[in-house]
Amino acid sequence: MKKLMKAVLKTKAQKGAEILNLEIPELKFGEVLVKVKTTSICGTDVHIWEWDNWAQNRIKNLPQILGHELAGEVVKIGDGVKNLKLGDYISAETHIPCKNCIQCLTGQEHICGNLKILGVDCNGAFAEFIALPEIVCWRNSPELPYEVASVQEPLGNAIYATLVEDVAGKKVAVIGEGPTGLFAVGVAKVSGATEIYILGKHPYRMEIARKMGADHLVFVNQIDPIAYILEKTKNVGVDIVLEMAGSQEAINLGFKIIRKGGRFSAFGIPSEKVTLDYSGGIIFKGITVYGINGREMYKTWFKTKNFLSSKRLDITPVITHKLSLEDFAKGFELMTTRPKICGKVVLIP
Amino acid sequence: MKKLMKAVLKTKAQKGAEILNLEIPELKFGEVLVKVKTTSICGTDVHIWEWDNWAQNRIKNLPQILGHELAGEVVKIGDGVKNLKLGDYISAETHIPCKNCIQCLTGQEHICGNLKILGVDCNGAFAEFIALPEIVCWRNSPELPYEVASVQEPLGNAIYATLVEDVAGKKVAVIGEGPTGLFAVGVAKVSGATEIYILGKHPYRMEIARKMGADHLVFVNQIDPIAYILEKTKNVGVDIVLEMAGSQEAINLGFKIIRKGGRFSAFGIPSEKVTLDYSGGIIFKGITVYGINGREMYKTWFKTKNFLSSKRLDITPVITHKLSLEDFAKGFELMTTRPKICGKVVLIP
Amino acid sequence: MKKLMKAVLKTKAQKGAEILNLEIPELKFGEVLVKVKTTSICGTDVHIWEWDNWAQNRIKNLPQILGHELAGEVVKIGDGVKNLKLGDYISAETHIPCKNCIQCLTGQEHICGNLKILGVDCNGAFAEFIALPEIVCWRNSPELPYEVASVQEPLGNAIYATLVEDVAGKKVAVIGEGPTGLFAVGVAKVSGATEIYILGKHPYRMEIARKMGADHLVFVNQIDPIAYILEKTKNVGVDIVLEMAGSQEAINLGFKIIRKGGRFSAFGIPSEKVTLDYSGGIIFKGITVYGINGREMYKTWFKTKNFLSSKRLDITPVITHKLSLEDFAKGFELMTTRPKICGKVVLIP
Amino acid sequence: MKKLMKAVLKTKAQKGAEILNLEIPELKFGEVLVKVKTTSICGTDVHIWEWDNWAQNRIKNLPQILGHELAGEVVKIGDGVKNLKLGDYISAETHIPCKNCIQCLTGQEHICGNLKILGVDCNGAFAEFIALPEIVCWRNSPELPYEVASVQEPLGNAIYATLVEDVAGKKVAVIGEGPTGLFAVGVAKVSGATEIYILGKHPYRMEIARKMGADHLVFVNQIDPIAYILEKTKNVGVDIVLEMAGSQEAINLGFKIIRKGGRFSAFGIPSEKVTLDYSGGIIFKGITVYGINGREMYKTWFKTKNFLSSKRLDITPVITHKLSLEDFAKGFELMTTRPKICGKVVLIP
Repeated sequence: MKKLMKAVLKTKAQKGAEILNLEIPELKFGEVLVKVKTTSICGTDVHIWEWDNWAQNRIKNLPQILGHELAGEVVKIGDGVKNLKLGDYISAETHIPCKNCIQCLTGQEHICGNLKILGVDCNGAFAEFIALPEIVCWRNSPELPYEVASVQEPLGNAIYATLVEDVAGKKVAVIGEGPTGLFAVGVAKVSGATEIYILGKHPYRMEIARKMGADHLVFVNQIDPIAYILEKTKNVGVDIVLEMAGSQEAINLGFKIIRKGGRFSAFGIPSEKVTLDYSGGIIFKGITVYGINGREMYKTWFKTKNFLSSKRLDITPVITHKLSLEDFAKGFELMTTRPKICGKVVLIP
Repeated sequence: MKKLMKAVLKTKAQKGAEILNLEIPELKFGEVLVKVKTTSICGTDVHIWEWDNWAQNRIKNLPQILGHELAGEVVKIGDGVKNLKLGDYISAETHIPCKNCIQCLTGQEHICGNLKILGVDCNGAFAEFIALPEIVCWRNSPELPYEVASVQEPLGNAIYATLVEDVAGKKVAVIGEGPTGLFAVGVAKVSGATEIYILGKHPYRMEIARKMGADHLVFVNQIDPIAYILEKTKNVGVDIVLEMAGSQEAINLGFKIIRKGGRFSAFGIPSEKVTLDYSGGIIFKGITVYGINGREMYKTWFKTKNFLSSKRLDITPVITHKLSLEDFAKGFELMTTRPKICGKVVLIP
Repeated sequence: MKKLMKAVLKTKAQKGAEILNLEIPELKFGEVLVKVKTTSICGTDVHIWEWDNWAQNRIKNLPQILGHELAGEVVKIGDGVKNLKLGDYISAETHIPCKNCIQCLTGQEHICGNLKILGVDCNGAFAEFIALPEIVCWRNSPELPYEVASVQEPLGNAIYATLVEDVAGKKVAVIGEGPTGLFAVGVAKVSGATEIYILGKHPYRMEIARKMGADHLVFVNQIDPIAYILEKTKNVGVDIVLEMAGSQEAINLGFKIIRKGGRFSAFGIPSEKVTLDYSGGIIFKGITVYGINGREMYKTWFKTKNFLSSKRLDITPVITHKLSLEDFAKGFELMTTRPKICGKVVLIP
Repeated sequence: MKKLMKAVLKTKAQKGAEILNLEIPELKFGEVLVKVKTTSICGTDVHIWEWDNWAQNRIKNLPQILGHELAGEVVKIGDGVKNLKLGDYISAETHIPCKNCIQCLTGQEHICGNLKILGVDCNGAFAEFIALPEIVCWRNSPELPYEVASVQEPLGNAIYATLVEDVAGKKVAVIGEGPTGLFAVGVAKVSGATEIYILGKHPYRMEIARKMGADHLVFVNQIDPIAYILEKTKNVGVDIVLEMAGSQEAINLGFKIIRKGGRFSAFGIPSEKVTLDYSGGIIFKGITVYGINGREMYKTWFKTKNFLSSKRLDITPVITHKLSLEDFAKGFELMTTRPKICGKVVLIP
């Protein structure tokens, strides 16, 4: 086996990253070595690439390999590994739990009290190989295409956010037309939502939302989304809001269009504190707000597998670009160009 | 307005019924008079028609007009009616609640402690007109076809039984290919179930199940359904069982094919006590069993409306026959012929 | 029967109110006349008394009788009343639902889409008599003392806020030592919370909290409540926060002391928008936030009855003052004096 | 360290067991060696002792050490152990999960698809030492008495069965006055149940139920329990039934006394199939039946810890006998004598 591998490394505390030849990682207890078949770019990677405030505060150690979404093949088994074997085709849960805190011991590993995140707290997946703890490896069905397998992690975000309570026979608004919002439209559609509004700005992505099943494309920069939705719902509002934009404006918009007694999934992450109509939006409306962080381990993954294996859910419209890992910079450029002209960008080592 | 109306009346404590001219009913406080556009035959009506043990014990007063599923138009408003008006196009919830017991006062009117059922405890809908308490009238969208509006009540059974917990991304087995089972297949499909098994015997109805979205037609008289399902689910079993046949054999079958931790909706009504593997089927498997009686008032009806208005759910394959009310006997014959060669039978007064 | 009654009336758009002789109200369809035995002062009444910004915007019609918490006896039955009879001993749910919107038709009357509130949208209970819709009357057990019966409405707030998810075997922090917070301590205690923190400032009320069962009196003006609670919970935080103070500071404090995966009941009503750590407090912690408005009709009332009838819950420590209705001004003075030197103030007409 | 230990061993396929000197077990990967401080007798142990039908079918390998409830101290650490250390004071979860099936991967380890049970599928705890997988060890608070620590396992059964849905402000009937039923009374009491009925026969145990908080001792061999409970609940029935007797009679009794819309915890294990009023008891009543097997890992354990540490729950009335391990036969005699004259029997090696 070769000793070196290509990897996209953040070496300096500034915008950008480099592709370098690094040593293939050694395995720790309980880890496997995975040959990465595909990896994909997440918004988190963009923050780190751009080295914004969040990244400067959050990333503790440089240099570090970027990336956390992946699909690959197990090529080496470390000590203490119990269930995986050579040749297994896996994707990775990127929340690495401690397995010893109250959250981990009560079925909430995804919000472990000592949570580590792949590509944030340790080396990531933009590389030819990655060492992964067995407990975050998810075995894929052999027929699952690599690029679909890679994006199961953000798809899982959408599945958890959308299905934290059921949507069947209900009206859903998705705020934010980023990849997770686009996935959420598809998940809501296949899960029986009977009216789906996507609220966004970028025509390229809004078109994808239509393909994923949105009934109403609400361009928030062109019409008054509150007036539009209240009219369509006869002044009641929608049953469910999936907030996936993360701006103060978007969050408050969500509280305006949700009906009394509705359900609000808080997924989009504002970088600053936000000023909210807490009384009018949450209390007087008697709504329930769910903070959504990651995906349930592994309830969400089983649903993801079933949706994909059964072909009920087709997410390929969201995967718009496949690039070579060497072209990672082009990928980041696509992700940051405005108006947005990509969905999910996949990189192939 | 005319004084007499045609109605299908059970006059004698024996099999059958007669069509007669009766006086159009007077309205009591809080009631409206509804001109029946369509009505449809339920299994309960068949029991009363056949005058089996259940009917002999349950029906207190003869003569009585049969039927309880209907769609119609409000043609007269009684004293104390608050929200309905002339010309409203309605269907009926057939569980008449007292509004004064603990169930009614805590959102469970469908299992009211003093429940009355239309066409069972009082005159029913197989007639040109029916007097209905306002509190059981549900306003339909104008564009809803009459025959679809009429069968919303049993469709609601299927929706409540299927969605009492969510099905999205899960594997579902429907036991029993009667009309409610066929509806349930459609509801599960549109609500994101990723693998749907229908277990039944009658080829005519199994074909309808296929049209409604079943992935596996399991003829229980031809193959071993337990072996089949365990093989398909890699020895795990299905996540959800919707038991809609009501025989001891079917119920125990349900406990065999459900996975540990699964959900079981008990809907099919056995006429006798049943002998169950309570330890192996319920306790050691740690499952949850929901007794499903009727539909939630009116949570289920809102979902029903949304599924139908959005055209996400097409139930027309289940509605196989439309007859004139005068041909009611032919309807009952269709419903009782073996093998079964009908789905839902609609009667038009 | 006499024609006039004493009533505390807000006559002018300014601080204060007057006690006057008014005509006993006429009954509308579906209403009963109730002789008020006791009534009690709520924070909402204080807002209206003080004629603050909220009151100026919210109160549409003057003059209006203040008050909404009460216990009394049915002395006259209007047309259309179905279940109440003369002599019934009742308290009132103060949320008057329309019974015709999606919330009312799905078991959420307490957040009716067309909600009216007693003493806010119509005449209230600070009077010898009040006309009440039958649908908001709750029959009390004969042995329930009048003053306890009167405060069941705010007690119901505490019960709903505390028990929206169960507390048994869990650690609970109650923020805010007003009467509802004090009730909540008692409810949490009797419902199995195993560690109860009350966070407040006023010694008089903190002592009542101790009597109601608080394990830790956390004076937020004397110690750092975050450090204190994190130390006591070994850096995990509490399972449940009941936010009953309603200030921006208090709400953010709640998000700091709650553990990942915890449950937050949002009850205290800030008068302005609030600036929150939405990412850190809600999303990354993966908590669930419930907006609590009023009480469930009538799930909460059944629990209230059971707690009181069984004597499991003793709320008398919170009822600190009983005054004659004529002394209402003294009651308001007690409620607004700082530091707070009262719990619940009851008025007797 | 010594090489031999005392242990109560089932050597032959017949009633009884022997105390012998055996080798202290070797540790497998991921295991620790625990010096047993106390162990306690469960009904399961009695089945094995008596070698009844169930035991003959269930126990695969003899000889085998009996017992599964225990408290002890970690005295040796095997390879692959991550979090435990020498001197840790632990109790054991007795359901040994595979950590690799759908149940284990979705927070339901207690009903693992490949479940092994301590003292049933492998050597148990009636010994001076036991080798335990780290993943079933639960760290106790140092101040917890050994005998209380030992019975946390069956106490956990009671906690899970009682609190699978909340009991606060509700009426609860516990059927069966065995140790788990007695624990359940205490758990219901401390968790806010406002009326608690214990249904049983043995005066000795009924008295313990009274001490644990039962409001009504219903001797089913002396009065008609259905008539009694329906009278007390004004013909409504109880909100919650905890069925802990496991006979056909008891289960059907539960379905008679539960109210429409109630919750039924199925815990008592009948040895044969049971004949039930499935229609009248489950469907028409619209109840929810939870199969309760073991305890949730580790949600239940956290609640248990909190109840005991806070001293909210005092279970000492249920622990009636402490014997030396050598006197195990006397313990079994106590457990099987009729009428029953013991609660929980603890053995001290």
